[in-house]
Amino acid sequence: MHKIQLNPVGVMSQLSQLEVNLLSEATDRDLYRLFRNCCLAVLYSGAEIDNSDNIFAPHRDFAVNLISRERGVKVELVNPPALAFVDGVLIKGVHEHIFSVLRDLLHMGAKYSAEALRVTPDSAYITHSVFDILRHAQTIKNTAELNMVVCWGGHSIDTVEYKYTKEVGYQLGLRKLNICTGCGPGAMKGPMKGATIGHAKQRYENGRYLGLTEPGIIAAEPPNAIVNELVIMPDIEKRLEAFIRLSHGIVIFPGGAGTAEELLYLIGIMLDEQNKEQVLPIILTGPEHCKAYFESIDYFIGEALGPEAQKLYEIVVGRPEKVAQIIKQKQRLVKNYRKQTGDSYDFNWSLKIAADFQIPFIPNHSSMAALNLHFEQPKTELAAALRQVFSGIVAGNVKSEGVALIKEHGPFQLTGDPKLMKLMDNLLESFVEQQRMKLPGSKYIPCYQITE
Amino acid sequence: MHKIQLNPVGVMSQLSQLEVNLLSEATDRDLYRLFRNCCLAVLYSGAEIDNSDNIFAPHRDFAVNLISRERGVKVELVNPPALAFVDGVLIKGVHEHIFSVLRDLLHMGAKYSAEALRVTPDSAYITHSVFDILRHAQTIKNTAELNMVVCWGGHSIDTVEYKYTKEVGYQLGLRKLNICTGCGPGAMKGPMKGATIGHAKQRYENGRYLGLTEPGIIAAEPPNAIVNELVIMPDIEKRLEAFIRLSHGIVIFPGGAGTAEELLYLIGIMLDEQNKEQVLPIILTGPEHCKAYFESIDYFIGEALGPEAQKLYEIVVGRPEKVAQIIKQKQRLVKNYRKQTGDSYDFNWSLKIAADFQIPFIPNHSSMAALNLHFEQPKTELAAALRQVFSGIVAGNVKSEGVALIKEHGPFQLTGDPKLMKLMDNLLESFVEQQRMKLPGSKYIPCYQITE
Amino acid sequence: MHKIQLNPVGVMSQLSQLEVNLLSEATDRDLYRLFRNCCLAVLYSGAEIDNSDNIFAPHRDFAVNLISRERGVKVELVNPPALAFVDGVLIKGVHEHIFSVLRDLLHMGAKYSAEALRVTPDSAYITHSVFDILRHAQTIKNTAELNMVVCWGGHSIDTVEYKYTKEVGYQLGLRKLNICTGCGPGAMKGPMKGATIGHAKQRYENGRYLGLTEPGIIAAEPPNAIVNELVIMPDIEKRLEAFIRLSHGIVIFPGGAGTAEELLYLIGIMLDEQNKEQVLPIILTGPEHCKAYFESIDYFIGEALGPEAQKLYEIVVGRPEKVAQIIKQKQRLVKNYRKQTGDSYDFNWSLKIAADFQIPFIPNHSSMAALNLHFEQPKTELAAALRQVFSGIVAGNVKSEGVALIKEHGPFQLTGDPKLMKLMDNLLESFVEQQRMKLPGSKYIPCYQITE
Amino acid sequence: MHKIQLNPVGVMSQLSQLEVNLLSEATDRDLYRLFRNCCLAVLYSGAEIDNSDNIFAPHRDFAVNLISRERGVKVELVNPPALAFVDGVLIKGVHEHIFSVLRDLLHMGAKYSAEALRVTPDSAYITHSVFDILRHAQTIKNTAELNMVVCWGGHSIDTVEYKYTKEVGYQLGLRKLNICTGCGPGAMKGPMKGATIGHAKQRYENGRYLGLTEPGIIAAEPPNAIVNELVIMPDIEKRLEAFIRLSHGIVIFPGGAGTAEELLYLIGIMLDEQNKEQVLPIILTGPEHCKAYFESIDYFIGEALGPEAQKLYEIVVGRPEKVAQIIKQKQRLVKNYRKQTGDSYDFNWSLKIAADFQIPFIPNHSSMAALNLHFEQPKTELAAALRQVFSGIVAGNVKSEGVALIKEHGPFQLTGDPKLMKLMDNLLESFVEQQRMKLPGSKYIPCYQITE
Repeated sequence: MHKIQLNPVGVMSQLSQLEVNLLSEATDRDLYRLFRNCCLAVLYSGAEIDNSDNIFAPHRDFAVNLISRERGVKVELVNPPALAFVDGVLIKGVHEHIFSVLRDLLHMGAKYSAEALRVTPDSAYITHSVFDILRHAQTIKNTAELNMVVCWGGHSIDTVEYKYTKEVGYQLGLRKLNICTGCGPGAMKGPMKGATIGHAKQRYENGRYLGLTEPGIIAAEPPNAIVNELVIMPDIEKRLEAFIRLSHGIVIFPGGAGTAEELLYLIGIMLDEQNKEQVLPIILTGPEHCKAYFESIDYFIGEALGPEAQKLYEIVVGRPEKVAQIIKQKQRLVKNYRKQTGDSYDFNWSLKIAADFQIPFIPNHSSMAALNLHFEQPKTELAAALRQVFSGIVAGNVKSEGVALIKEHGPFQLTGDPKLMKLMDNLLESFVEQQRMKLPGSKYIPCYQITE
Repeated sequence: MHKIQLNPVGVMSQLSQLEVNLLSEATDRDLYRLFRNCCLAVLYSGAEIDNSDNIFAPHRDFAVNLISRERGVKVELVNPPALAFVDGVLIKGVHEHIFSVLRDLLHMGAKYSAEALRVTPDSAYITHSVFDILRHAQTIKNTAELNMVVCWGGHSIDTVEYKYTKEVGYQLGLRKLNICTGCGPGAMKGPMKGATIGHAKQRYENGRYLGLTEPGIIAAEPPNAIVNELVIMPDIEKRLEAFIRLSHGIVIFPGGAGTAEELLYLIGIMLDEQNKEQVLPIILTGPEHCKAYFESIDYFIGEALGPEAQKLYEIVVGRPEKVAQIIKQKQRLVKNYRKQTGDSYDFNWSLKIAADFQIPFIPNHSSMAALNLHFEQPKTELAAALRQVFSGIVAGNVKSEGVALIKEHGPFQLTGDPKLMKLMDNLLESFVEQQRMKLPGSKYIPCYQITE
Repeated sequence: MHKIQLNPVGVMSQLSQLEVNLLSEATDRDLYRLFRNCCLAVLYSGAEIDNSDNIFAPHRDFAVNLISRERGVKVELVNPPALAFVDGVLIKGVHEHIFSVLRDLLHMGAKYSAEALRVTPDSAYITHSVFDILRHAQTIKNTAELNMVVCWGGHSIDTVEYKYTKEVGYQLGLRKLNICTGCGPGAMKGPMKGATIGHAKQRYENGRYLGLTEPGIIAAEPPNAIVNELVIMPDIEKRLEAFIRLSHGIVIFPGGAGTAEELLYLIGIMLDEQNKEQVLPIILTGPEHCKAYFESIDYFIGEALGPEAQKLYEIVVGRPEKVAQIIKQKQRLVKNYRKQTGDSYDFNWSLKIAADFQIPFIPNHSSMAALNLHFEQPKTELAAALRQVFSGIVAGNVKSEGVALIKEHGPFQLTGDPKLMKLMDNLLESFVEQQRMKLPGSKYIPCYQITE
Repeated sequence: MHKIQLNPVGVMSQLSQLEVNLLSEATDRDLYRLFRNCCLAVLYSGAEIDNSDNIFAPHRDFAVNLISRERGVKVELVNPPALAFVDGVLIKGVHEHIFSVLRDLLHMGAKYSAEALRVTPDSAYITHSVFDILRHAQTIKNTAELNMVVCWGGHSIDTVEYKYTKEVGYQLGLRKLNICTGCGPGAMKGPMKGATIGHAKQRYENGRYLGLTEPGIIAAEPPNAIVNELVIMPDIEKRLEAFIRLSHGIVIFPGGAGTAEELLYLIGIMLDEQNKEQVLPIILTGPEHCKAYFESIDYFIGEALGPEAQKLYEIVVGRPEKVAQIIKQKQRLVKNYRKQTGDSYDFNWSLKIAADFQIPFIPNHSSMAALNLHFEQPKTELAAALRQVFSGIVAGNVKSEGVALIKEHGPFQLTGDPKLMKLMDNLLESFVEQQRMKLPGSKYIPCYQITE
């Protein structure tokens, strides 16, 4: 049995005995398993992987224990995978991630157990909880500068696209902009690598590489070690809320179902009447060969949600420097808006997020089948439903629970307006063809069936 | 109406709207009053005062509001006293104290309302709460060095004694030891001033001047601005627990009832059978002319609690350098003990504190009259009861509620074993004679009556 | 033989073999002696002493060696005095001073040997050398704020005066002003101690306590350990030039001959026609009982140098806060002037210093006798000559060479205009009476004789 | 005319008027031209260029001026090339490089004018000057860790080789090793980029990317902006001496004439009898396809300098991680050796460098023709002569003066032992074939002719 002890780092270096117990297998089996699995995922730092089972299956003998010592609580890893060790020592970035997991799960366990949050329907309280988790993780920095650029995009992208995301990251970094992604490989790693070089050249010492994840996705998208702030949010909806309340600009690279979920979430919220004054630059971008890809996305949004939706973003093809310039220039407007409304620079309180987007959607065969996929409803509600479609597809593709459901009951059944179904089918088909649903090498079997 | 806005500093710079509401007068009148009064007390930084009413009475028009702004939550002071302002700008140290009050009262309000804690009789949970408050205030530092010296002693001491406390602080500072006191003037300020100079000469840049207070005492003992870590504990018992779990050594200067309370608390705990292996250097010290004072204290303890109690401390008269040398040399033993037991360097978890010392004692005429002041009980319990006597006297002397009770119902009545009553009477009498009960200039009228 | 090795600190931690040799006794006996004596003086940190012989005589067996090691050059002290050691370890501040001495004497030895500088009559080059020495010592900080307050005053002052200098320092510190003095006890230590407390309350972390000295005076006025920047200038004239080019305001406390020298130097320069636009607040201040003292100084200056000289300074008695307020308020004017003229905030290049004030004056019986002490000359020249008179008296009082000269040849003879001689005699007489020439306890025997 | 002013940064932020004058065109035309050209080169940061003329020719209207201002001396760039500007603002790294040039040329101008150094034949003084320049540039850090890895290799390498240098840099960075190169593109940039990512993952905040250059080569090999310490040494020999005295390990990637010069310099010195105890890991490495290349280098060295020379290095092909592991493991031996000999961790004083390697070699037709290229001489001397051959070829290829000489007089003539000539011819021929002499795209015309 191979054991390694990690010295404590960060805000939760010292724990009370009550807290140590909370994370032991004996006390709360579920919380412990969550903790153990997140630690295991984190140890797969940088791995090109997108299936939780590829991580969990070969490591059934992995365990994690907390040990109180005179200089704080040590984390003991039993039989950890070798990936993130350099000459026997865990990479410091990954070491920190382990303690981020500890910090967030303890906080969650003590204050925001998934259950407690699910029964709380109060929007203000949900937003408070998102804020409180981020602040506790020291992600709310109280800086004078607006510079957090959220980058979304696929984990499975080709080499040219990957280089492009690095180049965009480099150009953002040269402008002292920071990067926030959902962790994982591909478009979630490239911008951080690029920005690291850009920041180094600008001697920007406090470069932030913020990774937002949640227990269901972390194993499919392990954070890479450049991430220097890792936060595990309780569920996908709070993760999405964290993304947009923290962001001062959003860049969307080519991607698959996950990226579509994020885009629809964003558009659904920005379409809200109460958000029409909000200032948030949104750019869809990729290298030259992605032109058609973006056109098909744009077409889908135009047809499904109308031209007002299309006006919310700008498509820039093959020009990384321009992407960074637009984002940078718009920061002044974002700042002015926050100043006028007295809203925090670090957390966009004034953004209205409707309950549809906040309440956790648990994808399963009945909830998926029950989605209202018709045009006769407000655009924001349709966007919310479409977002849930893609959320379900992500779950069926890569999340443990979703994959198990599909294995047992076959693909999710989606029905609705024939035109909308057609649009969706085409879009998804193109993702499959372009190999955006799975990492290259594996054949993709759809987890959904569209019936008009 | 004179208003001043303070920019946010520290961990609670950004608040959610729920939190801002929590501290507004409209939401929770009691919590707001606590907040307002602590802020007012803090603004009396450095004042030579020992009566809450001297602060509260002339400032009925003082108010404090929270205002959300783009760079965090500002604290607005309405009609603040002028004391701590330099050319119209609040001294930075006091500015920080205001935000420490905000931080601790919010945390207390959200997690450890006085009521909630009073109904929780579980010792482990009380200790967890003490720890959690200190950690949230970033007082648990996770350092490798043991160096926190708690200094207790009177607020009302003469010039020679005050100089002596400065000199001891200087010698501790030269040895890179830090200072923790209960805030206020006299023996609680002197060691910090001295240590500041000692630290400067040693280029010890992270000198800690930790002030532990509680809402009931803060107005009678306002923190001075050198205090660079201020924590408001929920009540006197948690404050005392914080003192001894944080300390690596304790120095006790001459003082009155408060100092006696602290000393009895300490002795009562150290006498516990389960603490007999504990290592904690305790020194009673003062200038040459305090020799008789310490002899009378020592005599009282010997007679009341026996020679084992006397063995717990060392009396050093007129030798500041020796005090510092002893504390410094013993740090190695303290460290070894923590290392052997795997106990934290920063919080003495293994120290046993019996329920008698943890459960808040609310002094009033009936609780004071009910105290068991007889020899026929374990020494630790007698010490606990004696500690409560002095706690009650402090309340009757300087705390708002206590002073009001005395005004209404006359002095507290204390009865018990005649010999013990005689001992106590003599000790208290000597405090009065030596002007240790009140600041010079005011005549002391006892708030207690001893009946054999 | 008792030996102690000090680890290297600061810019000159690593030396080449050529440099190590330069400071060895074998290579350059004079430079080595200078180095050794300055080290010995520095080890008398904080001592209340004003006679070099009191330091040098009892320590004939003291030596200092340089030892190359893998982590830089260590300084080995052989038989060091015990004064500045705490439990066997040298106070860090003093440890740093040793390396400041090393740094400055090496730099001086390599670039600005006393001889080389004496033969260079070029004013621009002398000023360049003053600047280069200060920059090499990292005293030129390139900060945006103007805040360096030079404090002059006696080493031998009474308790009330000493407390007053601390209080002024405290008020300056509360306003985030820094302190520069000539090192030594009394008025050169008090402001630094006070400012340390003021800075601590304001959380002003980069407080500067700058000590400027020179090899001839350092032993009579050892730096105290609060000094966190120590620079040894080559001679008294460069030290004076450093004082005024670095200062953004000057506070003059009561003192004796040294203080008079400084004041006359300052007035002589400020009277220069080319400096009439210069902005430099100058305040003479002391506690209430110094009123008469300042009147006699003011009278002397008025009679000797005229009312324009008197207009250069303001006398403030008994109001420490006001002193600090005036200095602080005037900083804006100083800043504006520098900005308008494009002059450095950190070094007043535009101040004209005439050759009389730059060229080293070597006091001996013939140079003192040759001074032109008559009214028939420009005021600046008369001020220069008067400054030299007091410079000679300081040398005769406390500097090794001067004391030896007086011992051998009797007092210096001063002749000149009868009225001027009378004025000077009265002033000096008052210094003697007020015990400003020597530390209390020793009887002062004048080292000068005034003949009309 | 386009002008930009740069705020001062670094140790030479403040200058005296004498210094400002020193770098003005009016005072010293040669020093000014050197200053101007180095600034221009620095502004070509990151450019893929290897011919000074490509930089100088199109920028005849470029000029650089110093302007004294209240916050230090500004550098004014007149008509700077646009390359290193982001949205009109100079990249901070390049901005710093401009001030490094200023710092080093001023220091050189004041203390080590090329002329002064050329007439000084004393080895100890030359080494002192190398040390003094590095220390003045704050490159001597006085750290406890040994970690400076010098990477040499070609500016003109193919994509696979470039990626390989990045990967080696990444592996070194993961082991907290720092990188020192000669600036420029290719093998001098790759390791720094890789190490930046490795350092980020290890949270190694003080990563050093040290660039050593000299006025003759800087324009052909402009530093990239990742370089965070740039030092301009007076000439190629002092640059080489700086490389090896600073290094704790040396990695040599594929390259052309410059790399051969460096390797021969290194071997020549390490072969010195007085250096046989020296510990310095040297690794020749490249991707798989470089196997033959290294075999031909190894063959040349074996034939020309014997098997002892071959024992000095290890060839590792296609294994970046192993390269880093070897270097890392050997650090312990390097440290032990320095400790035993009391030699500095930061500057290898004990390494013997013979005069042949220290005295500047000025390549021209006569000095090249006069080289002693025969076997009948000590190996170190032959290595020195061979090093000079390659130094001359680098000059003829890329340095302004060398290129001009070749243009005027035709190729350098090299004669010597036929076998040696044959070996050299073969080696150079292989460099040409592999396009290692020039950047791809340009045809290489040899600047030398070998006659047996």
